[in-house]
Amino acid sequence: MSDAKPTTLVIGAGLIGTSIAMGLVKAGYSVFISDTDESAIDIATTRSGAKALAENSGEIQLVIVATPPSKVAEVIRSAVSAHPTAVITDVASVKGSIVNALSDLSDGQLANIVGGHPMAGREVSGAVGAQNNLFVDRSWVVTKLPQSSASAVATVEAMISDLGAVPIERDVDAHDQAVALISHTPQVVASVLAGELVDAQNNQVELAGQGLRDTIRIASSDSKLWSDILSGNAKHVAARVNSISQRLAKVAKALESGDQATIAEMLKQGSAGRDRLPGKHGGVNLNGLNTKYLLIVVRVDDKPGELARLFNVAASAEVNLEDVRIDHSLGRMTGLVELTVAQDKRDVLVNALTAAQFVVVN
Amino acid sequence: MSDAKPTTLVIGAGLIGTSIAMGLVKAGYSVFISDTDESAIDIATTRSGAKALAENSGEIQLVIVATPPSKVAEVIRSAVSAHPTAVITDVASVKGSIVNALSDLSDGQLANIVGGHPMAGREVSGAVGAQNNLFVDRSWVVTKLPQSSASAVATVEAMISDLGAVPIERDVDAHDQAVALISHTPQVVASVLAGELVDAQNNQVELAGQGLRDTIRIASSDSKLWSDILSGNAKHVAARVNSISQRLAKVAKALESGDQATIAEMLKQGSAGRDRLPGKHGGVNLNGLNTKYLLIVVRVDDKPGELARLFNVAASAEVNLEDVRIDHSLGRMTGLVELTVAQDKRDVLVNALTAAQFVVVN
Repeated sequence: MSDAKPTTLVIGAGLIGTSIAMGLVKAGYSVFISDTDESAIDIATTRSGAKALAENSGEIQLVIVATPPSKVAEVIRSAVSAHPTAVITDVASVKGSIVNALSDLSDGQLANIVGGHPMAGREVSGAVGAQNNLFVDRSWVVTKLPQSSASAVATVEAMISDLGAVPIERDVDAHDQAVALISHTPQVVASVLAGELVDAQNNQVELAGQGLRDTIRIASSDSKLWSDILSGNAKHVAARVNSISQRLAKVAKALESGDQATIAEMLKQGSAGRDRLPGKHGGVNLNGLNTKYLLIVVRVDDKPGELARLFNVAASAEVNLEDVRIDHSLGRMTGLVELTVAQDKRDVLVNALTAAQFVVVN
Repeated sequence: MSDAKPTTLVIGAGLIGTSIAMGLVKAGYSVFISDTDESAIDIATTRSGAKALAENSGEIQLVIVATPPSKVAEVIRSAVSAHPTAVITDVASVKGSIVNALSDLSDGQLANIVGGHPMAGREVSGAVGAQNNLFVDRSWVVTKLPQSSASAVATVEAMISDLGAVPIERDVDAHDQAVALISHTPQVVASVLAGELVDAQNNQVELAGQGLRDTIRIASSDSKLWSDILSGNAKHVAARVNSISQRLAKVAKALESGDQATIAEMLKQGSAGRDRLPGKHGGVNLNGLNTKYLLIVVRVDDKPGELARLFNVAASAEVNLEDVRIDHSLGRMTGLVELTVAQDKRDVLVNALTAAQFVVVN
């Protein structure tokens, strides 16, 4: 237990694995990489400064499994044999199915295993896209097994911190239930909703606004990876998806029978659910504070420099922008920019924008 | 048919009605306002420069009904009696149920009626929030009846253009089917999905990222107004909601039985549906062009001025930002800003940002 960084093997030279290797090399770790694809190893070692795993690599102290989710359990099992003293973690977004697949390992073997799930990497793919700072400021869930040793957990959490991420401990099943709710089920719902558009006419979809665009944005995600993720968390996701299916059927029935009370109740529940989401810095609902934010919509000409001018005005007025969205209008060369600001900053910003000849729409 | 603007009565002094009154007064129209709420009339006339409707208001040539959707048919009926020569339009987001409720009017009376639906006004409410430029650059659907006269349509479309909006003609049923698909059903789905969060634990929702936030953003909409809208388009919305409910049930079954092919197909369909949405300027899918855009994620300190600095760098590099999002990380005082740029501008922008000491995450 010295301060020296553990000699680390990253298995899987994709975006996540290569990004981890890059970040750990930068943090002073001695890092080796392996992959079934030789050319991926070439790219990953060149980009990261890590070395390809070889006969003479010496004793590995930490193994990070960054293969596709469906391969993780099998790769962990091999790693347990090949590196019996090493701490072993993984980066799969589903944890329970992996733990189940390893249940025949001995307590001594399981003591070295700690699950992990970095909340990063969305909408990018491939080793060439890897970056040493992919995890900076991101949450990284750590799932201990009942058998995981304290020192194994400490090694994994130190590695996470060394990558600039924030370790957050969760039970395996609590993690899988949470991601079913906040990530996997929304993916299914967005994909199924977006699927309704496949056969739509152009003159229907061309009326779509920012609302629909936001609602189905994540439907663009990688279907191969997500098929794997959803299957690995099938039980929890199926329960949520069934619940939503049944509630939608109830809504359809209420619409058909003119039962307005049910419709109104569904909308109110949705609004209450939306309010449960953490706000900026994850803090609003956790500590009872609930800063109110307001939307300001500004018309901006669609040319380089106009957005910069807009943000310069906000900076000069010392107003912090909590969120920014750009909504392009059908058929016009202008954009409507939505700025979210704290309630007490609204007037200051509107006055500053108006003085700078911006058109504040509402 | 002179060039003079028609003397106009706006019925309903809410956000939309008052904004219309303000815009038309600015465009040189003589505008009157009526409402069942005297105090709303006071606010609306003060803000807009329009006058309250009175005995001596003279002949009204154009009536714009801007009441809640469930009242529109009844108010149009009264307007037909009170102003038999006036062109009458409305701003309800559902059209078919209104037309049905007016089917006993004579062809001569229906000749003066033209439906309308401005695609604006989202997430703001109340007469005090009204703005004369609320509709600038927004689409405004015009729904002719079979009986609508050409001059009535011309009067309504001229009014829309005078507000700075873009008139787009659609059949009544085509409109209602389109908004069921692109607006009303997404509202139901987002609300039902967000409803799943009501009973969630804090340690589940605090892991939520930008994906879920986007997917359920519209669940914050006004439940009273939306209950009205959904009920007015019940048939088309129920059909879509039922279809989605059944497809979700199929997905749940596939998850339970381990049928990966069905899961993968659902995800692929969703991605294809997402690609149907019009891109910037409504143009990408309409004319066969399909400019590729890429995402650049940049870490930005959470303080006034940093966003301005970021956009100044983009402006100096002459790179146009197509979209901007800010993703706040759990527990850290920094934000990750996602910039969408045309593919061929990516390298230019990344180099410029790096030179300016910004951390480009991917």
